[in-house]
Amino acid sequence: MPKTAGIILVGNEILSGKVEDANAVYLCRELRALGVDVRRITVIPDEVQLIADEVATFSRDYDVVFTSGGVGPTHDDVTIEGVARAMMVPVVRHSLLVELLERYYRGKVTEAALRMAEIPQGAELVGGETVRFPTVLMRNVYVLPGVPEIFRAKFEALRERFRDAPIHLKNVFVGIGEGTLADYLNRLLVDFPLLQLGSYPEFSNPEYKVKVTLESRDRGYLEQALTELLTRLPDGVVVKVT
Amino acid sequence: MPKTAGIILVGNEILSGKVEDANAVYLCRELRALGVDVRRITVIPDEVQLIADEVATFSRDYDVVFTSGGVGPTHDDVTIEGVARAMMVPVVRHSLLVELLERYYRGKVTEAALRMAEIPQGAELVGGETVRFPTVLMRNVYVLPGVPEIFRAKFEALRERFRDAPIHLKNVFVGIGEGTLADYLNRLLVDFPLLQLGSYPEFSNPEYKVKVTLESRDRGYLEQALTELLTRLPDGVVVKVT
Repeated sequence: MPKTAGIILVGNEILSGKVEDANAVYLCRELRALGVDVRRITVIPDEVQLIADEVATFSRDYDVVFTSGGVGPTHDDVTIEGVARAMMVPVVRHSLLVELLERYYRGKVTEAALRMAEIPQGAELVGGETVRFPTVLMRNVYVLPGVPEIFRAKFEALRERFRDAPIHLKNVFVGIGEGTLADYLNRLLVDFPLLQLGSYPEFSNPEYKVKVTLESRDRGYLEQALTELLTRLPDGVVVKVT
Repeated sequence: MPKTAGIILVGNEILSGKVEDANAVYLCRELRALGVDVRRITVIPDEVQLIADEVATFSRDYDVVFTSGGVGPTHDDVTIEGVARAMMVPVVRHSLLVELLERYYRGKVTEAALRMAEIPQGAELVGGETVRFPTVLMRNVYVLPGVPEIFRAKFEALRERFRDAPIHLKNVFVGIGEGTLADYLNRLLVDFPLLQLGSYPEFSNPEYKVKVTLESRDRGYLEQALTELLTRLPDGVVVKVT
């Protein structure tokens, strides 16, 4: 089961500020709920060598990798070529994808559209039972499209592959600033070194000053750490716990 | 003048799906308007060595680098340490920042809060004329905070440093799909190899099927390419040009 993930967004349109990413945002939320730790997101231009370098590194560093964007029939759709180069295999045409494209275009499929039938040699097609086109999986790299509706539909079809032990979360909202809070957090980490502890100040929120997040895959450990923190904080400082 | 930029978001909270990035989105839009090409965005955890590796690579690869997040008084604020390690210099306390913090906390500044007075040795303080705290600039790396309001205020104070020759943009919205359009775009690129050409399908938009973007720093070249594309496309295909 995958414990760590990396996300590669292939997207000139994001880098040039034309489009806001929706796919990494969605995927981070979904993977976290499944118990997978996203370790890195990168946004790079639609350039074969950059994609190849990034995919090779991510594929080695993380259990599972997702790419988004750069799949389609036009000149700027070079993700498949990038993934193939990363794995040092050629690009080949897959007969099932040719068939699906011919059906989709009702026999009038152009040579350009047939680029969408290309996969890195040795890739599998997965999750095609519930969506129109299956997803290309090359080793541990899932190649997903940039269009958010299709990205989500394809991920939904694959979701259960990624389920792991859940990561439990508790939020403590406090009415003191980080300058004062820091000592309490540092001391908590001494006693609970495996705790994932986050501290997020809010400067314009009248209700609280800092949101503290405590996380662990071990529910008992999390509860113990939470109890300790709540006991140690001065009276009246905790606004709420969720 | 900087031509290329890289953005490093230090953010467990983004990777774990708790918070949506607002700073890279903002910065991509602003830098594009200023004529700067953002070449890469990366989101990494709050870990010193990861930050150091990324900052070292980005600082070498791009004219200007921005980090967002991980500055503050708590245990997870390790960006300054990461930048210092990237540049192989120690972290030192800056007397002006100590003074500003003492004023801000009205003399009751904690040892933890004084971490915000730390900079990589050799860093400059810039843009402090119009905002409460100046920005730490280490070589070509600007260290900005994660809180969006403060991120923006600090960038605004620095904006004119980054102005370059503008990148001109034309959008052509067409009523044909990418499968048919691809050939026209490929042929256009043969004649205008320096054109930045993007193709973005819309599957749920009734008005058009694909948005084509043409970009160049050379306005004449862009206009020529646009005229050629509009001449070559079949009658009735172009929905609008903006």
